[in-house]
Order: sequence, then structure tokens, then C-alpha cells
Amino acid sequence: MKGGHVVLLSGGVGGAKLADGLAQCLPPGKLTIVVNTGDDFTHLGLRICPDIDSVSYMLAGLNDEERGWGRRNETWRCLEAVRQLGGPDWFRLGDQDIALHLIRSSLLKEGRSLSEVTAEIAAQMGIRHRVVPMTDATVETVLQMPGGEEMAFQDYFVRNQCRPRITGVKYRSACSSTMSDAMNDALQRNDLAGIVIAPSNPLLSIGPILAIAGVKAKMAERKVPVVAVSPLIGGAAVKGPAAKIMKETGFTPGNQGIAEYYKGLLDGLVIHSMDEGPDGRGGLDIAVKAGNTMMDTAYDRQMVAQMALDLVRELAQ
Amino acid sequence: MKGGHVVLLSGGVGGAKLADGLAQCLPPGKLTIVVNTGDDFTHLGLRICPDIDSVSYMLAGLNDEERGWGRRNETWRCLEAVRQLGGPDWFRLGDQDIALHLIRSSLLKEGRSLSEVTAEIAAQMGIRHRVVPMTDATVETVLQMPGGEEMAFQDYFVRNQCRPRITGVKYRSACSSTMSDAMNDALQRNDLAGIVIAPSNPLLSIGPILAIAGVKAKMAERKVPVVAVSPLIGGAAVKGPAAKIMKETGFTPGNQGIAEYYKGLLDGLVIHSMDEGPDGRGGLDIAVKAGNTMMDTAYDRQMVAQMALDLVRELAQ
Repeated sequence: MKGGHVVLLSGGVGGAKLADGLAQCLPPGKLTIVVNTGDDFTHLGLRICPDIDSVSYMLAGLNDEERGWGRRNETWRCLEAVRQLGGPDWFRLGDQDIALHLIRSSLLKEGRSLSEVTAEIAAQMGIRHRVVPMTDATVETVLQMPGGEEMAFQDYFVRNQCRPRITGVKYRSACSSTMSDAMNDALQRNDLAGIVIAPSNPLLSIGPILAIAGVKAKMAERKVPVVAVSPLIGGAAVKGPAAKIMKETGFTPGNQGIAEYYKGLLDGLVIHSMDEGPDGRGGLDIAVKAGNTMMDTAYDRQMVAQMALDLVRELAQ
Repeated sequence: MKGGHVVLLSGGVGGAKLADGLAQCLPPGKLTIVVNTGDDFTHLGLRICPDIDSVSYMLAGLNDEERGWGRRNETWRCLEAVRQLGGPDWFRLGDQDIALHLIRSSLLKEGRSLSEVTAEIAAQMGIRHRVVPMTDATVETVLQMPGGEEMAFQDYFVRNQCRPRITGVKYRSACSSTMSDAMNDALQRNDLAGIVIAPSNPLLSIGPILAIAGVKAKMAERKVPVVAVSPLIGGAAVKGPAAKIMKETGFTPGNQGIAEYYKGLLDGLVIHSMDEGPDGRGGLDIAVKAGNTMMDTAYDRQMVAQMALDLVRELAQ
């Protein structure tokens, strides 16, 4: 582990926090942050990558801590004018945020890959750690409803505030898409020490990454410790619909369910101390480290990252 | 003329002012404003139609009087963020202005025509008069330089502030493009009373309209009075490079040059009183009406529009 490379699999908000923690612990050459793109969508002609943006804004120190998404000191003049012109205002686009989407969209239109564009924008923001999309192809997370109906991710997540009951989650085109070169390179490194799964929604944010052709096989092949940080505390999500979705799709909403979801892949789980239970490991049959998994401050984030890195190191011994 | 329909051929700033004047004089059913689209371009993936926007903002009362372009109470948060991300900031896009470009671009991407999109946006802005693009095709005004070089319109006009010397102006694809249905319909109306040419730059703003296949022939065929408002006062442009460009392309920068540029097409010219000259008609051999052609206030604009309408009526007798 000493000096080894770590790959983080990350969604948006929770992932961005752990990415920040790991970026505090590891030098730029030792961390690759692989980000879910299953939520990406095109809106008002803009290509929007919510999870990549959350991670990038966080690492650049541009994120809004209070709101939990988007840029700080944001204004909404453009969105207000969109609304006045009869355009769609259900997806909240800030003025500064739109700048990023404009630049990304026009670079993609020039034929650049999402990997290239993401790297270029990260560099412009002064981010020194590698932020890479899971794939350069288009993979779409789709919610399955009772009766066979399907709903696009942002319609479910933003427009309908995750209220509809779902029966499953589908990652459209995932099994026919390949992971990005940068993700593949990171997983192939000789000095790969471990893989960390962020406390993001397993089904909505990590599931798409794991569904990409070859990802699970490559992870198994590498035989490095795979450690997750649980997104749940006391069976409830710190933020977002993780518990609700796990329940609806047949997983126990708790660390048992998390371990079950990642079964066969996971060697260890970082959980909150309140979930340690009588056996000190939350009744789980994998390695467990317990502590404070809330990540409100930069210090918290570093401490949680350190727990995950410690668990990787312990498992490697 | 009484109750007849008037067609205005318009560029951006000067055209927008006369459009406003005519809109004060004529009810919505009696005026069609045909706008130059030769300056339209794609920037940061946004389809921008500067002249249509100037006319629309003016008619909706949203224009910035002082700056002379764009929307009033505008902010520049997005552009500042574009600059910080290393994107192009030479074309000044306001936050509210971007909303219009986003909506237009995404409607065009859905396959709607520029005519449809322009009408829809105008309706959303509460504009009751018809604003129509000269064509739904892509016609590009290109500046010709010494040595055969060419420069795209916005590169010349905004980026280089009209400084380079030009040898000519080209309207790429104009002669193979057809006018928009709405323009054609207006020119075919039974009740067409006259055609007014706005005090816009003849070569840059009106030239593209006249270059579209069939426009000049249709105008001649209708035999209704064609009247221009001169963009020059004392041989100088009220705003913009009209005089400089006329000189460089071989036209006398004055009303003689204007009449010469529109030769064979024009029946009358509205000029500023200071240009009346000893013969009271500026030495021109077409009908002339002289007065205050400055259009700073709404009242000025109405007065200039009235002069043009009076000249049309006099010529029709």
C-alpha cells in the first residue's frame, strides 16, 4: 500500500466528499477518481454531467457547502430569463454552472472525448488529481417502475424528487460499453494498492460503473482490496434516496444490504460507529472499520478517507 | 397606403430603432419586419442571431438603451466563469441573453426552423408585430480583404472592431438560398403598400437580404414604393462602420452613395435636414424627405417612421 495507487469509484455528492478526503491524503499521482456518468443528460442543448461536476467543484473548492450541489456564490439570472421565455426551469442551472456546460458541450461537439474534456476542465480549475469518467460512451441509468414503465434518471431524481416507487434500475448500454482508457489504465497499474467505493448511492451511482463491460472482471482479476464506505448510518442515508431505493429493489436498507449489493466484490466496509453492533462489525462477514462517517468538514472528509485507506492497508497484509 | 401592409428590411441596432418607430405607427397586422441573418453564428455551441435579437429586445422593451445592444439590467456571471475556465470571452454574452440563445439553439436542434423559433420567442416576449428572418437557410456575410483573404463577420465586427480594411463583402450561399416563407408571404400580399429599408449598414445588414435569390426581382415586380432611411448624417454613420465600409468598397460615404448602392431599387430616401443641400433634396434624383433622422427616444423613432410612411404614401399617389 505504501506509495500505492488508489482508485475511487464515485457518484456525486457523497463521492465528491470522499474524493476530497482522499485528495487530502494522497498526492495527485496516487489517486484516480472514476466518476459515474449514468446521470449525464442533455438539457437545453447543454451536456450536463452532474457527478463529474460535483466532484470537480468540490476538488476545486468551488462547491456550495450549504446547498450541497453546484457552485458557491451562484446566481440564477439565466434560469430566470429561461423561465420568462417559457423554457424549462425544473433543472436548476446557475449562471456560473452554465459556463462549464457551455464549454463542455462545445468541446464535445468538436469531437473531443468526455475524458479529454473532463481533464481539460479539471486542469483549468486547478485540480491536480485525476478525475475520469467511467466511460466515453453514453450509458443511461433508467428507473424501472411497476407495470414495466421506465423513467429517465433526471426525471426521477430532480423532476419527481425520487418519489415514485421503483422496481429496479437499468444501466442502458452499459454492458455494450467499455470503460474509459483512463479508468482502464488506473485499474491496470502495477502499483495499484486498492479500490475504494464511495458512500454514494449503490444502485444509482456505483451500479452504473460496475455494470460497464469488464469492470467487475478487472476488479476481481487485480486481487487488490476493495473497500467501501457505507452511505448509510443507522439504516438511513445521510442524503438522498439510498435507503428507499434499496428497500424497493429488495435489499435490506442497512450495512447488510450494502454488503449484499457488493457481494463477491467487497473485502471491507467502513461503517459508522453507531452501527458497530454487539460483534463490533455490524454483523457483517467482511472486514469492518467503524468510526465517524459523517463528512461535513474538510477534516471529517480526511478522517473518513484515512479509515478507508487504513482498511485497504490492513486487508493487503 | 391607407391600411396597407408595410415590409421593413432591417439589420440590428438602427433597424431595431426604426422597427420600434414603425411598430408605434402601425398595428401588428400591418407590419412585417424582415431581419438580416447574415451575421448569425455559432459560439460556444449557441446559435446567435444578433440582428433578430436586437429587433426583438427593442420591440419587447428589453433592450439596453445606453449600451445600444443586448438586454437591460444585464449581468455577466456566466461569461466571467467562461473566462476563468479558459473559454472564449471576446463575444460578450450576458446571463439573460444566454437564456435566449439556449432556447433558440435547443429548438433548432429539435428540427424547428429559424422562422418558427423566432416567432415563438417573439410571442413569449409579448411582441405582437411579425419578426421574420430573411431566410431559414444559412447565409454568411464574409468580409473580403486585400490579397483575397476572407474574414467571418463576427471576427471582423466584434473581435477586430471593424479595423481591417476590406475590399468587398460576400454573402455566402445567398444566391442559392430562398427567402423565408414569411418574408415571401409579406412581399406577395395583395395589400402591400410599400417596402422600407432601415437605416442599417447597407453592405453589412441590408445587402445580405437583397442578395437572397429572388428578393430583388420580387421587390421590382410588386411596383410598390421602396423607401430607405439613410444611416448617414453629414456623411458619417450615426453608429458603426457604414461610412468606412462604403469608402473602402468604392461608394461615396454620403446619401449619394446610399442611393447608388440601392440603385434601381429605391424610389425615395429619408435624410437628415443637415444633408438637404441647396436643392432641398441632397442632390439626389429620387424622392427625398428631410428631417431629424436621429432615433434616440421612442418619440424620435416614431417621427422617423412617420417620415418613411409619409414618403411611401406620397410616392404611391
